[in-house]
Amino acid sequence: MDKNMKIGFIGLGVMGQSMAGHLLDAGYDLHVYNRTKSKAEGLLARGAEWMSSVEALAKRCEVIFTILGFPADVEEVYLGEGGLLAHARPGTVLVDMTTSSPELAERIYQVALSRELKVLDAPVSGGDLGARAGTLSIMAGGEKELFDELLPLLGCMGNNIVHQGPAGSGQHCKMCNQITIASNMLGVCEAMAYAQKSGLDTEKVLKSISSGAAGSWSLENLAPRMLEGNFDPGFFVKHFIKDMGIAADSAEGMSLDLPGLELALTRYRALQASGFGDEGTQALFRLYSPDQGAV
Amino acid sequence: MDKNMKIGFIGLGVMGQSMAGHLLDAGYDLHVYNRTKSKAEGLLARGAEWMSSVEALAKRCEVIFTILGFPADVEEVYLGEGGLLAHARPGTVLVDMTTSSPELAERIYQVALSRELKVLDAPVSGGDLGARAGTLSIMAGGEKELFDELLPLLGCMGNNIVHQGPAGSGQHCKMCNQITIASNMLGVCEAMAYAQKSGLDTEKVLKSISSGAAGSWSLENLAPRMLEGNFDPGFFVKHFIKDMGIAADSAEGMSLDLPGLELALTRYRALQASGFGDEGTQALFRLYSPDQGAV
Repeated sequence: MDKNMKIGFIGLGVMGQSMAGHLLDAGYDLHVYNRTKSKAEGLLARGAEWMSSVEALAKRCEVIFTILGFPADVEEVYLGEGGLLAHARPGTVLVDMTTSSPELAERIYQVALSRELKVLDAPVSGGDLGARAGTLSIMAGGEKELFDELLPLLGCMGNNIVHQGPAGSGQHCKMCNQITIASNMLGVCEAMAYAQKSGLDTEKVLKSISSGAAGSWSLENLAPRMLEGNFDPGFFVKHFIKDMGIAADSAEGMSLDLPGLELALTRYRALQASGFGDEGTQALFRLYSPDQGAV
Repeated sequence: MDKNMKIGFIGLGVMGQSMAGHLLDAGYDLHVYNRTKSKAEGLLARGAEWMSSVEALAKRCEVIFTILGFPADVEEVYLGEGGLLAHARPGTVLVDMTTSSPELAERIYQVALSRELKVLDAPVSGGDLGARAGTLSIMAGGEKELFDELLPLLGCMGNNIVHQGPAGSGQHCKMCNQITIASNMLGVCEAMAYAQKSGLDTEKVLKSISSGAAGSWSLENLAPRMLEGNFDPGFFVKHFIKDMGIAADSAEGMSLDLPGLELALTRYRALQASGFGDEGTQALFRLYSPDQGAV
């Protein structure tokens, strides 16, 4: 792709900062905007250009990436009065990498069509470590031709990049990812709670069960943190609740009954209600462990 | 270990046949008994000696392995009138590899002590493939000294052999394995159902989510079978229900609330009630898929 092309990036949280940094490292002319300007400082020091508003960025850039917090933020940044769809020039490409609602992604796609803009929904998995290493999994929805054009840019941020189908499909795929994790977290917590309660040596239990049919990323990576009482966020409880809520709404809209997801969502909401929304998802273990303050 | 030592093996189902076969291959003097004699034929043809009853086998052998169906079978074979504890000679070693109740394992251990017998509970995971390949994970409970003595024999059947603690600990560890799998199966089924319902290409979804934080043995091995409608048993629904029931009872006995396990057990019982108890655990997907006859 043309390295002189003006790239925009909105949303400089932990994920966004790393992802935008890769575009900068690859030599693109990067323009950034974020609600809290201080989070842009590192990128500005490395040569990114600050834009004073979404509107200003929209008018300047040819390809614009966003990774925001909640669907309400996506709605405002895309569909609001000062938003991307109102101010981007015809032909501009908009890529939303927020984990957000499939229905909203489809709505943005329809509005964009009518304004001669091109959009892709492209949420990611892989967390802060994947973002930093440029090894994210990127699940994209939108026109295949557009997806193919964007591959050089997406390839700066991820290494498992799959076109899932039409607009909204990237979000739907991300929902599958979160649905799988939701119930598995219950299983991992419950097994570790059972192990402790029955007096087993949890390290030995993990040695016996991690490599077989019970094995999973969560068991391998999060069970040890649970057992150490390390609830530092890799992935925030509050964000996981947001994602599961979107998945539950989306499933309900399709008349699909997902009792495992519902149970996990209920349990995580109880955890958040006890004041642990800013911890990592492994903090679910607190609900099973009388010493951890959330029972 | 002394290759002339008389080894007994009771329970020649799919697992038992393979496991006993490895002891035979290793050159041990193998004596076998099974309720249905025909299942012993392969082993007898290879040199194993048929015993006409549990009692006869108990009187003849120095180390006796069992892998049976349900806890009631274990209770009968160990504690019944014609059982192992009544008829084994002092000093005999008894190793129960059935997935059974931790409480029963402790009870057998206590009775055995009073009769100068040595027992180990040593359930396995790895399924029929692991049994055939001799790569089972073996989780053992009982005296450490006895465990160490038995390692050469256990090593014929498994390659991840861990002493978990005192009598009952092997069973407790196996419960941790099954508890982990139970909720994860909900997540895998629900994600695949969501993928289908939202019109995604499930192969692409698996490409996006299998290697990241949603990844698990079940997602990798069982999701493809679900999607093909292949519900052939690797591990039977009816046996998984047995195991989850033991885990649920055991958790209740420890006043431990495991809602994920309870939900999985309820769902699997519904599946069995629809007539699918003899299928593999991936048949849980039927409950989510209107074409599969169990909704």
